[in-house]
Amino acid sequence: MPSTFVIAQGGGPTAVINQTMAGAVLEIRRRHPKARVLGSRHGVRGIRDGDYVDLSDIPEEQLLRIAATPGAALGSTRDKPDAAYCDVILEGLKKADARAFIYIGGNDTAGTQQILTEAAQGSIAFVHAPKTIDNDLEENDHTPGFISAAEFVAGAFLSVDLDFRALPGIYVGIVMGRHAGFLTAAAAAWRDEDTDGPHLIYVPERAFSVPRFIDEVKATLARHRRCVVAVSEGVTTADGKALVESIVPADKLERDAHGNIKLSGSDLSRAFENALAEGLPGKRARVDALGYMPRGYIGAVNAVDAQEAFDAGVFAIDAADKGGGSVALKYEGGKTVLKLVPLANVAGKTRHMPDDFMLPDANHLSEKGLEYLRRLVPGRFKIGRPFV
Amino acid sequence: MPSTFVIAQGGGPTAVINQTMAGAVLEIRRRHPKARVLGSRHGVRGIRDGDYVDLSDIPEEQLLRIAATPGAALGSTRDKPDAAYCDVILEGLKKADARAFIYIGGNDTAGTQQILTEAAQGSIAFVHAPKTIDNDLEENDHTPGFISAAEFVAGAFLSVDLDFRALPGIYVGIVMGRHAGFLTAAAAAWRDEDTDGPHLIYVPERAFSVPRFIDEVKATLARHRRCVVAVSEGVTTADGKALVESIVPADKLERDAHGNIKLSGSDLSRAFENALAEGLPGKRARVDALGYMPRGYIGAVNAVDAQEAFDAGVFAIDAADKGGGSVALKYEGGKTVLKLVPLANVAGKTRHMPDDFMLPDANHLSEKGLEYLRRLVPGRFKIGRPFV
Repeated sequence: MPSTFVIAQGGGPTAVINQTMAGAVLEIRRRHPKARVLGSRHGVRGIRDGDYVDLSDIPEEQLLRIAATPGAALGSTRDKPDAAYCDVILEGLKKADARAFIYIGGNDTAGTQQILTEAAQGSIAFVHAPKTIDNDLEENDHTPGFISAAEFVAGAFLSVDLDFRALPGIYVGIVMGRHAGFLTAAAAAWRDEDTDGPHLIYVPERAFSVPRFIDEVKATLARHRRCVVAVSEGVTTADGKALVESIVPADKLERDAHGNIKLSGSDLSRAFENALAEGLPGKRARVDALGYMPRGYIGAVNAVDAQEAFDAGVFAIDAADKGGGSVALKYEGGKTVLKLVPLANVAGKTRHMPDDFMLPDANHLSEKGLEYLRRLVPGRFKIGRPFV
Repeated sequence: MPSTFVIAQGGGPTAVINQTMAGAVLEIRRRHPKARVLGSRHGVRGIRDGDYVDLSDIPEEQLLRIAATPGAALGSTRDKPDAAYCDVILEGLKKADARAFIYIGGNDTAGTQQILTEAAQGSIAFVHAPKTIDNDLEENDHTPGFISAAEFVAGAFLSVDLDFRALPGIYVGIVMGRHAGFLTAAAAAWRDEDTDGPHLIYVPERAFSVPRFIDEVKATLARHRRCVVAVSEGVTTADGKALVESIVPADKLERDAHGNIKLSGSDLSRAFENALAEGLPGKRARVDALGYMPRGYIGAVNAVDAQEAFDAGVFAIDAADKGGGSVALKYEGGKTVLKLVPLANVAGKTRHMPDDFMLPDANHLSEKGLEYLRRLVPGRFKIGRPFV
């Protein structure tokens, strides 16, 4: 039997994706002490190019230090292989004498594993181990990486709200999240009293309207003298287009290999600045994009998230020994448990935030939404209430 | 003798400005158990409007919880009083039976205290207690609020650099700092090896040139495959103008009451995006403004910073009893010590980052600059080196 396990990381890095790699490597050592473990650099590119790091004998101490470090230690990629690319990958895996390929990533990564599974016809086990700050994988209660990112976002909005109490005005914080609003919603996880920000939450699941936005900001200012807003970079207008598409000419939209529009630039910030300047002239308004910080800020690595990511890596090896599939985090009987599910259930699919996580008629979280977020990101700080 | 101490907070909030307030209140209680302590809401506005919170009997536990909370619990202001406004403030202070006014803030706040001192002619003690994330106060080795902000910035750039190792490209992070580059320079505090980012540091003290910037990014990409850049929002071109002034038409520049140009918008981000798109077409480039997060992120409140800010509040009451002045943090004999200095030495002045904190011929820190930053912000995380 072939004796090599290949591991790679795909998509955007997270605070805990290296925990999953470490969990997998240590479990291979425990189950298959003689197996070789190869880390493929930059996702499937390393397999294509024969660019591996041999993880077989890396000291456990070093591995655990890497596990505790954000980023993707093996490097990552946004390549989405087509059939020809998949043939090259398969050839590379055979050349490496691979018995299994564990690919840690989101729904695009699961998609690659699905294609490879079909092409390999059983000769190699393909496992998808979940990872994404977007929390948008089907079959999962939540995904490794989300809790740490959510904790950063909750802390950032709590902090900015305190800042804007002191110097009132309008604050709009733009949060990563193309199709799913979970991470943006996490901005409200640490609200305590009714006056606390964020006062408005805009997610991709709800159609965004500039006039309604201005009205809601006005109403909030009238009540609280300030208005703190959390908005997903992926908010869409009623015609189903990303808000940024209504601003940037089609030929200037930057896209990645998956055809996804780049959302992280200053265009969206400017759109909000302009809308506020026009709708609320003279009002102090500041727009920040939180950008890359939530997805790997070293000061917000959550211990539960880290453990779950490690456990998903361990479980991935059991999955490999059973023939492959996707590792999923379920919530059952009051705790997170790992299950093996078909790749097809996760590949290329997007789990949206349930509609009832938001209030039916307001851009804010429902009790159900808050309950979910507070379960994952319980309050970490007991603040002293300001006098203003 | 009048028996009331008035305390207020001015300028941008920080992670530890409430520590200074708490230190002052507790020291007043200790020295003058019968004195009344009034917190003026929103800086001098509260004195003008008679809008006070009575801090005389607030339980110590509540006060210490507020002390540990970022923001400015009394509210803040950017008002810069003229002579007429100062007359109103003086009248308000007399009406409140004030013996001393402790104003926590930066160089503009010290300026207000200087004007008031001259106008009051000795009837009231005016004390300036230092606070600013910009670290730009004369007479100070460093200022309360800077260490926490610097720790956030150091962690943010360490984290983003790990992210860009995994998915290479160009990252530009824009950091608050109008005239002084200290906070931007802090991005490099936790660099460990030569390959680590940030690879380029641009501060307001050095003239910024777009063509040179592009050349330096190109050279960094050739060496490291990625380029992580930290840039101050206040970088200026050789003609002495803020970079943002060369982008935005003069009549569209937003200014505050002090005549300062608003730097925190998306204009600067866009300028960098455009420069990179033109100079390095097709290269993955991302520009984030760190915005408000460094100045009060609840997850990066530094314990030394908190203690120093508290101590500055305590010392401010000794200063009040001695007739007033500005509290300064000196570094002597290997430790931080507090001294009373004349308001005129601090008021309206800007301490720039010393020229020899940067290499003479490169946009990077010198050993001297790094030594200073590492003394204030020693490494907090031991990372595992990535394989890419």
